[in-house]
Amino acid sequence: MNFLNEVAGRYPEALSLAAGRPHEEFFEIADIHRYLERYQRYLTEDQGYSPEQARRAFFQYGRTKGIIHELVARNLAVDERISAEPESIVVTVGCQEAMFLVLRALRRDERDVVLAVAPTYVGLTGAAKLVDMPVLTVPGGPGGIDLAELAAAVRGARAEGLRPRACYLLADHSNPSGLSLDLPTRHALLELAEREDLLLLEDNPYGVFASGDPAERPPTLKALDRRRRVVHLGSYAKTGLPGARVGFVVADQLVTAADGTQSLLADELAKLKSMLTVNTAPIAQAVIAGKLLEHEGSLVRANAREIALYRENLAHLLTGLAAAFPAGSGVGWNTPSGGFFLVVSVPFEVDDALLETSARDYGLLWTPMHHFTEAPEARHQLRLAVSLLTPDQITEGLRRLTRLINDRLDA
Amino acid sequence: MNFLNEVAGRYPEALSLAAGRPHEEFFEIADIHRYLERYQRYLTEDQGYSPEQARRAFFQYGRTKGIIHELVARNLAVDERISAEPESIVVTVGCQEAMFLVLRALRRDERDVVLAVAPTYVGLTGAAKLVDMPVLTVPGGPGGIDLAELAAAVRGARAEGLRPRACYLLADHSNPSGLSLDLPTRHALLELAEREDLLLLEDNPYGVFASGDPAERPPTLKALDRRRRVVHLGSYAKTGLPGARVGFVVADQLVTAADGTQSLLADELAKLKSMLTVNTAPIAQAVIAGKLLEHEGSLVRANAREIALYRENLAHLLTGLAAAFPAGSGVGWNTPSGGFFLVVSVPFEVDDALLETSARDYGLLWTPMHHFTEAPEARHQLRLAVSLLTPDQITEGLRRLTRLINDRLDA
Repeated sequence: MNFLNEVAGRYPEALSLAAGRPHEEFFEIADIHRYLERYQRYLTEDQGYSPEQARRAFFQYGRTKGIIHELVARNLAVDERISAEPESIVVTVGCQEAMFLVLRALRRDERDVVLAVAPTYVGLTGAAKLVDMPVLTVPGGPGGIDLAELAAAVRGARAEGLRPRACYLLADHSNPSGLSLDLPTRHALLELAEREDLLLLEDNPYGVFASGDPAERPPTLKALDRRRRVVHLGSYAKTGLPGARVGFVVADQLVTAADGTQSLLADELAKLKSMLTVNTAPIAQAVIAGKLLEHEGSLVRANAREIALYRENLAHLLTGLAAAFPAGSGVGWNTPSGGFFLVVSVPFEVDDALLETSARDYGLLWTPMHHFTEAPEARHQLRLAVSLLTPDQITEGLRRLTRLINDRLDA
Repeated sequence: MNFLNEVAGRYPEALSLAAGRPHEEFFEIADIHRYLERYQRYLTEDQGYSPEQARRAFFQYGRTKGIIHELVARNLAVDERISAEPESIVVTVGCQEAMFLVLRALRRDERDVVLAVAPTYVGLTGAAKLVDMPVLTVPGGPGGIDLAELAAAVRGARAEGLRPRACYLLADHSNPSGLSLDLPTRHALLELAEREDLLLLEDNPYGVFASGDPAERPPTLKALDRRRRVVHLGSYAKTGLPGARVGFVVADQLVTAADGTQSLLADELAKLKSMLTVNTAPIAQAVIAGKLLEHEGSLVRANAREIALYRENLAHLLTGLAAAFPAGSGVGWNTPSGGFFLVVSVPFEVDDALLETSARDYGLLWTPMHHFTEAPEARHQLRLAVSLLTPDQITEGLRRLTRLINDRLDA
């Protein structure tokens, strides 16, 4: 993504439909102080810490697996219907560290590979690169995942002597596609994982940002997982506070060592973490803990205003696209049920040169989809993000996008 | 170190001369709030940030290389006589992440190795393990480094077809040995690095904790470095606040890409960091920044009480050892000029079983030196740490240690 950041840096005045950062309008620096105080009160009043113990929790190195694991477990129960043992959770420096730790733990030698549903979040590709693990992509298709393709990929890799250790995907409002898996597909995917002896790495930064009733969205893969097939990767960057850099992983799988002893995958990840970052900053964990405590463990509740704004933005963008590009225009798009992103398809090539033109001549930034996949259709697609903007900015962004697309269609 | 943590966990009542954590008595949770406010004022009053920009600095994802690089550069100038371009600094999740990033950047294939002065900090060994890079240890000896051994190790490795990319060491109050290099040795080491075309990885968590006049301690290797031979690894865990997990690396080396373009090593590290932790929590950086600002960039000033306490503790321990073990007792120790650690040598084997006995029967924890090196003398050595204790606790710890040692000598 260096090129994309570089273009954004050169055109700071351009309106960005590229940035997938969370909305910041509802945040105040005072929130940080309040969250820290809330967590301090929780330690002394609810957990019976002495003042010295509370001081130590903020000040010193903490437990490698994290100090807010019980609050994370409660959050997963409240918002995601996941029953996670706190001991199966490792609190990480963002979800990015969690991806690195899991891939590093799964890699024994050059035969180990990870599968990833395409288009693929660049963070996964980056973590795999750091651990020297090849990523074999599996086409997602319009349903978000193609199970026949996935099974074929697993078997094909094994036939070549490779060990596909896991398949990475976002089941809810994926980045970059915006797509979610429907409930039958989730069940079928879990069955496939069991049948093919495959782990699923479920990354879930956007699950709470459903446009509809949160009670009606399908359960996460981890909530449906009965056989410890799912490693659940979580992020508080979008729901908590990006500036805290706190994520986590639920890794309740049992690992058998050479001497026959068993341990939790979470404990194996902690051993690696002790050599990577030692622990996640207790102060940053305290900030997230305070936000969780303030909203009885629910980030759906904590993000009520954000969820409403993202829903309105997404609806506004979809309405605007339909008005600008009637049927037969050759321009299409998908219709995500929530999240930050959607994908527009056009009948001309979408490359980095077009992005440069868009930024320079139209004052508009977006993300070419070819950065997320080598699939040929991506050469005609672009990703739009709605999270950082107001509805008025989306109206203006759409106006500029329409002009760009129509100029290209006329060319 | 898992065994050591495990023993400490099983004997929570034992007095610890093992823990190298910083003293926490002078810390209050209110400090965190004050530091955050100080950094906020710095942004708005000194840096001209609008309230929205300041809010964004705390809230959003930040610059990959860090947001407090200019304050780190000022700190290095004030406390360490290092002139570092802010752009050559990467702020990291503790020094541990910095070690990982540097080793990962230096590793191209299985021929790349890192040299390390023995006994060696376990964090370096851990980071090297994560990147699959062998560590070749070089005996440190009583002077802290043996230059003839180092030169021989470089040449020996090359003769075997290996590429020694760097040599890791602590020049000041090393962990675990407590030793510092004298000025002539520092100059000779820099000359050797130039002659043998070797990078030096200088890790400096304890430099400010000199027992004597800080103006009289020898300059860091980086302060003496005229040819960009030194990558300087820094930690604010001991001088700032462990719970913030903020470290940094100064990497002003030029890296030439295959196409001939040059970049700073710091920028190469930032690319790797974007795939590992994305960035260091801005909130954690803000806490450290506030502490730096409060003391005009000087952590020597910020740690005046801690430095005095560590000095007193170290002197107290040395006096107590001399009283307990007169010449001819067969018990010896080194005499560090500052820092957290010293090493005691005894005429019997110091293994994990002895530590277990010490914890169970004597109520005392310390660290067997064989965890830091395979050198045979380490089988008769133990590390003592003075940082977390009061002088009274040191007196009591010495009493227990004396009893343990005398019981063994009598056995």
